[in-house]
Amino acid sequence: MKNDKYKGWVKTVSLALPSLQDNTSDADRLARALKKELKTDFIKIDLEILRHLPNFLRKWDFTARCVVFKNHGQWILAGICDPRETTPPAGMAADLGTTRIVLRLINLLSGKILAESSFDNPQISIGQDILTRVHFADTDKGLEKLNHLIVGSINRNIEDLCKTCNLKPEHVYLISIAGNTAMTHFLMGLDTHWLIREPYIPVINSPGLIKAKAMGIKVNPAAQVMIFPNIGSYFGGDLISGILFSGMNQSEETAILIDVGTNAEVVFGNSNWLIACAGAAGPALESGVTRMGMMAGPGAIDRVAIDPVTRKFQIHAIGNMPPKGICGSGLIDLVAQLFLSGLIDIRGKLVLETCGSRFLKKSGNARLIVVPAEKSATGKDLTISQADIDSLIKAKAAMYTILETITASVGMAPQDIKIFYIAGTFGSFINPGSAVSIGMLPDISAESYKTLGNSSLGGATMVLNCCDCIDEIDAIRNRITYLELNVNQEFMNRLSAAEFIPHTDTRLFRSVKNPGTEDQALVCP
Amino acid sequence: MKNDKYKGWVKTVSLALPSLQDNTSDADRLARALKKELKTDFIKIDLEILRHLPNFLRKWDFTARCVVFKNHGQWILAGICDPRETTPPAGMAADLGTTRIVLRLINLLSGKILAESSFDNPQISIGQDILTRVHFADTDKGLEKLNHLIVGSINRNIEDLCKTCNLKPEHVYLISIAGNTAMTHFLMGLDTHWLIREPYIPVINSPGLIKAKAMGIKVNPAAQVMIFPNIGSYFGGDLISGILFSGMNQSEETAILIDVGTNAEVVFGNSNWLIACAGAAGPALESGVTRMGMMAGPGAIDRVAIDPVTRKFQIHAIGNMPPKGICGSGLIDLVAQLFLSGLIDIRGKLVLETCGSRFLKKSGNARLIVVPAEKSATGKDLTISQADIDSLIKAKAAMYTILETITASVGMAPQDIKIFYIAGTFGSFINPGSAVSIGMLPDISAESYKTLGNSSLGGATMVLNCCDCIDEIDAIRNRITYLELNVNQEFMNRLSAAEFIPHTDTRLFRSVKNPGTEDQALVCP
Repeated sequence: MKNDKYKGWVKTVSLALPSLQDNTSDADRLARALKKELKTDFIKIDLEILRHLPNFLRKWDFTARCVVFKNHGQWILAGICDPRETTPPAGMAADLGTTRIVLRLINLLSGKILAESSFDNPQISIGQDILTRVHFADTDKGLEKLNHLIVGSINRNIEDLCKTCNLKPEHVYLISIAGNTAMTHFLMGLDTHWLIREPYIPVINSPGLIKAKAMGIKVNPAAQVMIFPNIGSYFGGDLISGILFSGMNQSEETAILIDVGTNAEVVFGNSNWLIACAGAAGPALESGVTRMGMMAGPGAIDRVAIDPVTRKFQIHAIGNMPPKGICGSGLIDLVAQLFLSGLIDIRGKLVLETCGSRFLKKSGNARLIVVPAEKSATGKDLTISQADIDSLIKAKAAMYTILETITASVGMAPQDIKIFYIAGTFGSFINPGSAVSIGMLPDISAESYKTLGNSSLGGATMVLNCCDCIDEIDAIRNRITYLELNVNQEFMNRLSAAEFIPHTDTRLFRSVKNPGTEDQALVCP
Repeated sequence: MKNDKYKGWVKTVSLALPSLQDNTSDADRLARALKKELKTDFIKIDLEILRHLPNFLRKWDFTARCVVFKNHGQWILAGICDPRETTPPAGMAADLGTTRIVLRLINLLSGKILAESSFDNPQISIGQDILTRVHFADTDKGLEKLNHLIVGSINRNIEDLCKTCNLKPEHVYLISIAGNTAMTHFLMGLDTHWLIREPYIPVINSPGLIKAKAMGIKVNPAAQVMIFPNIGSYFGGDLISGILFSGMNQSEETAILIDVGTNAEVVFGNSNWLIACAGAAGPALESGVTRMGMMAGPGAIDRVAIDPVTRKFQIHAIGNMPPKGICGSGLIDLVAQLFLSGLIDIRGKLVLETCGSRFLKKSGNARLIVVPAEKSATGKDLTISQADIDSLIKAKAAMYTILETITASVGMAPQDIKIFYIAGTFGSFINPGSAVSIGMLPDISAESYKTLGNSSLGGATMVLNCCDCIDEIDAIRNRITYLELNVNQEFMNRLSAAEFIPHTDTRLFRSVKNPGTEDQALVCP
């Protein structure tokens, strides 16, 4: 996940002074020095740079700090600056999420993070989900509008971000962007029509380097943008970036990486092979389907503890605020605690006797009061319905079945995994213990679970800090075998078996004790 | 000079149809087919093309006519079009002269010339010669103005040229441009300040491919421009293009190529080696210094015959019009005939007795009436002065000395040359016999002299018609040894010896008879 040695994209070169004996042009002289430094036989120099090159080289006594970049083994000069300049050349890493966009400004000399900003994807005004946006893109000037929204918001945020560290957008020479396939298509202004229609064909898998200017991104006019490649409509560059960030692609130990968003995306493998698949386990886990569901953020319940004896609830909301909803990880915690304290049974059904006064039944749908009106931020009871629990159980079963299927494809089982990465916002908040308790994740040691945080942004940052990473991205992409999840009889059998808490086969979850037999309470911090 | 087999840049490919089993993106699918066709492992596809790719591929049933281009072994897709389209994709070759610009539209499917246009370089309004323009470029917005003049005129002429063959500028996908180093710099908007100052450093030697759009050239938005590389300030891409056009770079027979413009540029070599040099022999030969001098064009005297017995002049002007001036080749003819008919002596001095009534002497400068007022287009006598003749003799001596020096560098003499290419407008009009008579060119068989016409445009055209030529350009550039003309004692001795007609050593010019001994008259056609 980290580099031992900083090996960035900035190369400072000193050129031989021009003479009648050595009257090579400025550009070819610079290229000669860079080719030697980079051990390559060609480097492309943009016209924008050529236009300033003679003055700059002479002002800087024929030395130059060069920001280079590479794609498919082809080097390109993305900018030159004064080697004596104290302002560092900057790079920008971006995680282009459907909901949130995070930008991170990097000092390309040191690899240090200069500043970070995160903002709502302005395309939400068109539609919360990708599907709505893809349909909108098909309308007159729809794609153009989606493209302008995203590019405009990036431009505004780069400008603000630069201001906070006394930089100008012109100081940004490299950009790396990881996002799902639809988002990167919107960013490039590419047609998304066929992304969502069988056989789900993107316009491009490996965009490689594109000039920022051609994309309308206002940074240095010669700046280059690297967009992480995707494997298909449903397996985006954000996950490739996540794999890079996890380091699983360089480890001999077989690891698994899950990223739960709109879909549950799973990667399994090591330095020799990688298998990936994606399945529709996401929405319920991300709490999108729960009436009181919300994204992880201030006021969202992220941790729940229920005393198995007194059945007293301890609720924690992000920011220590009165709760106003529940996020995905909170929901998993809640259901795990409901099970461990006997408020739901192994089928996930609310148990009237143990729920007591928290049990409500309106218009046929049973509900449980999680936070009574007087303690909630909304002034109303925050409740979870039987249907909410059912859909969570379906989702966790799908997740576990995906894990069983992907490990089985190489003759392994989820329990054999020694390293289990959980990526994304969901991963940052999840309590792996709870996820194990409900049988969503395999019953392996707590130390095996490693949360990666924003791995998409992490991978995009790595690319800006490490020359070798760029080749590794192609290597990852080429090494991945995509496993189509055939929803066949075997898959359905596995799914049915997983639709219990923790599982019909309790031997798979030995650490999950039967409710009420021991003190299982988790104490909220 | 010609290809046996047409091997152009247009490749029509049929793609495998997308399916769930083969859900590669449109761009990667197209790249896969092209990589196979081109036997390469990478081809860059521009964002402009990606934006239309999904619709086009589906409209064209997953076939596409692709216009590709290459630089330093790196392939790029410059455009795609409907394989069923009857309008051919077009290319444009340009000869970017200091004085004239010639554009040629090519059918990229067949290699055939569609149309051609030639117009004055609009930068003449800034200055006739390059030096004046370079100084102007240093003034405020000077470079920008020079750049806009040239780009604007090219855009207007492309549009007009396209109209004449029912094309639109969008149908132009490839452009190849050959010009001297200063002109290509102006075209790219690059600083020319250091071009004319010791040690004469261009901004770039090998510009490679640049997007037409980035240069402001209005053709297809994805079109690529190839600018011929230069060797230095005084050895431009026009000459590299000329070498390519002559084919001397691929012949075992050692040949010489001269291009007389502002400078006399000389290339000597074969398929194994090439030596080049440039010397200031040009202006006098191009007739720029003669009072009655003019560019080859309607009304310019291009051929002269003088009866050695009657000393009657036969004058031919281009377009069979009354003469209004004399072009470079006409001047050489005139001086050769003056010598052969005894009107000037071996030092080039006017002989009073033989000149008779044509001899004038005003204010110390002797003159000879070439065309009397009543026969000239100007209504005034067209005369040549002793000073004009002196400067032509200096120039022809310089030319011959350069030829002696360059051949001597490999132990040969000008007389050893079997193939002698003469390029440029000058070359199209020159009578090699006359040039031999005055001792400017070596006394070798008339069949050895081959005029190439506009070889710069010819080479630029070849690049559009032949994939292999692009690598040959780099090969030529890398193979050329540039010979600095050291104006040392040996050079000065050679120059002095050459300042006679035809030479002090008449054994070198055995075919040139002493004046008056035989009928040497050339009859004008």
